[in-house]
Amino acid sequence: MQKERMVDVSKSIAIVGLGLIGGSIAMALQGFEGYEVVGVDVSQPTLRYAAEHHVADRVTDDAKQALAQADVVFLCLHPQGIVDFLVRHKDDFRSGALVTDVCGVKTAIAEAARVLPPDVEFIGGHPMAGTEFSGVQNALKDMFRGAHYIIVPNEESSPEHVALLERMAAYVGCRDVVKTTAQQHDAIIAYTSQMMHVIAVSVCDDPKLFEFMGFEGDSFRGCTRVAALDVPLWTQLFSLNAPQLDEALERLERNISEYRRVLRSGDRKALAQKLEWSAARKRKMNRCEQGCRE
Amino acid sequence: MQKERMVDVSKSIAIVGLGLIGGSIAMALQGFEGYEVVGVDVSQPTLRYAAEHHVADRVTDDAKQALAQADVVFLCLHPQGIVDFLVRHKDDFRSGALVTDVCGVKTAIAEAARVLPPDVEFIGGHPMAGTEFSGVQNALKDMFRGAHYIIVPNEESSPEHVALLERMAAYVGCRDVVKTTAQQHDAIIAYTSQMMHVIAVSVCDDPKLFEFMGFEGDSFRGCTRVAALDVPLWTQLFSLNAPQLDEALERLERNISEYRRVLRSGDRKALAQKLEWSAARKRKMNRCEQGCRE
Repeated sequence: MQKERMVDVSKSIAIVGLGLIGGSIAMALQGFEGYEVVGVDVSQPTLRYAAEHHVADRVTDDAKQALAQADVVFLCLHPQGIVDFLVRHKDDFRSGALVTDVCGVKTAIAEAARVLPPDVEFIGGHPMAGTEFSGVQNALKDMFRGAHYIIVPNEESSPEHVALLERMAAYVGCRDVVKTTAQQHDAIIAYTSQMMHVIAVSVCDDPKLFEFMGFEGDSFRGCTRVAALDVPLWTQLFSLNAPQLDEALERLERNISEYRRVLRSGDRKALAQKLEWSAARKRKMNRCEQGCRE
Repeated sequence: MQKERMVDVSKSIAIVGLGLIGGSIAMALQGFEGYEVVGVDVSQPTLRYAAEHHVADRVTDDAKQALAQADVVFLCLHPQGIVDFLVRHKDDFRSGALVTDVCGVKTAIAEAARVLPPDVEFIGGHPMAGTEFSGVQNALKDMFRGAHYIIVPNEESSPEHVALLERMAAYVGCRDVVKTTAQQHDAIIAYTSQMMHVIAVSVCDDPKLFEFMGFEGDSFRGCTRVAALDVPLWTQLFSLNAPQLDEALERLERNISEYRRVLRSGDRKALAQKLEWSAARKRKMNRCEQGCRE
């Protein structure tokens, strides 16, 4: 394992699961406040790749030992993997450690984290970044640049650990840290992320997809990019948040139906008014993105 | 009007309407086979901007004179604007001229072009490019780089004019020229483009949009980018292609409903199978985009 700079091995961050997000976090966290970044995985090819590409300061398949030394643990497995890992390793974490995750659902993970002993603190997290690819070989040091980082502390969360999470989010390049509850997170994410994936796959389910290929522009590419998704991951994410996702999709269906109704009416003025209303909402959102929250 | 190079003023291309697309075509066509590119618009601020930024070789508000000299005319107005322009100027085109357009619907335009005299040839076109912005100040020389260029010749179209259109498409940077009929184009575009815009505005119609802001990732941005649309343009495009668009939306609603059904069933295996099917279609499409048509 090559060492390119000095790290204080008495302070350590363990990244459990060197996939697309875990690998990217490991890369982006290197150098953070002198912590050693330790990559943990069960796959030897992944560990080899990670070692060769310096994805972490050090890599290991010995989760137990890494957890015993880690001040901070990032759980970067698939949702069910996190649940299973917490059960299996609940007694292996260092006393006083901060445990967090990067999972796209938060209620189910917070529930699972209740197995941890009282001297180990869990604060769920969700950096809003990713690509349609998976695996450490697609990890990017810049994955989180400009992204929102959601964390779900509760009233008992220690201010020191919340502040530590915020500094790490800033260090990996996130534009801001947004705090919410696990329930609220899951309602939001059903709309802002999961629904986008259901739209993308539903568009690709169209029987005309291949017949009409060669006629798509950026709007089609932008909408369907995420359809080439990681199936086991998204099966879990959707399943663990099914009622919220279903509710968001119901709202979408209502809104599409309403557009169909106006279209079929042939009333151009009503259509223009409706489009103006929607477009104005998007333009307002764009303006806010660019600064009204600052 | 500054001149940066020699053009053969005996050969001329008139671009009628220096908006986002017309402006971009005018910029991209400069230097093509020695043609002079003449920008035509009714707006003085647009003409001034175009002259100052050398959007065309020459700009004018005298459509009649520009048409009398033009070997090729690109109609780059909104759909209704094209229909009206054809009626008003049907006798002003040069004998033997090729008239084309860049409009996102083709059946209604082909219908309108029947007013042209027999010695003026109309071949509809649709370069599959654009942004959510409008106006000459957002025009880009590189707008068409890598885009599909659809043309709708018929059995009577002259091979010389088809070949000329193909050379111009290549010159402005399009990746390929796809030929189809006006009816087929409109069915396709209802799915690959118009539906994407209805999805985008319908997502933005969600009552939770502003409440949930700050939690969106690239999938949300990719899907909703086009919601900030040019309202008069899209009102016309949707209205002129309403039955086809409604049919595409009906297929989408069926596909979304099917996902909702499987989600609500709680059957993870069925959900995984369904996602695998959709994702495989998208991955196949990505592979084709990268080469299987070559």
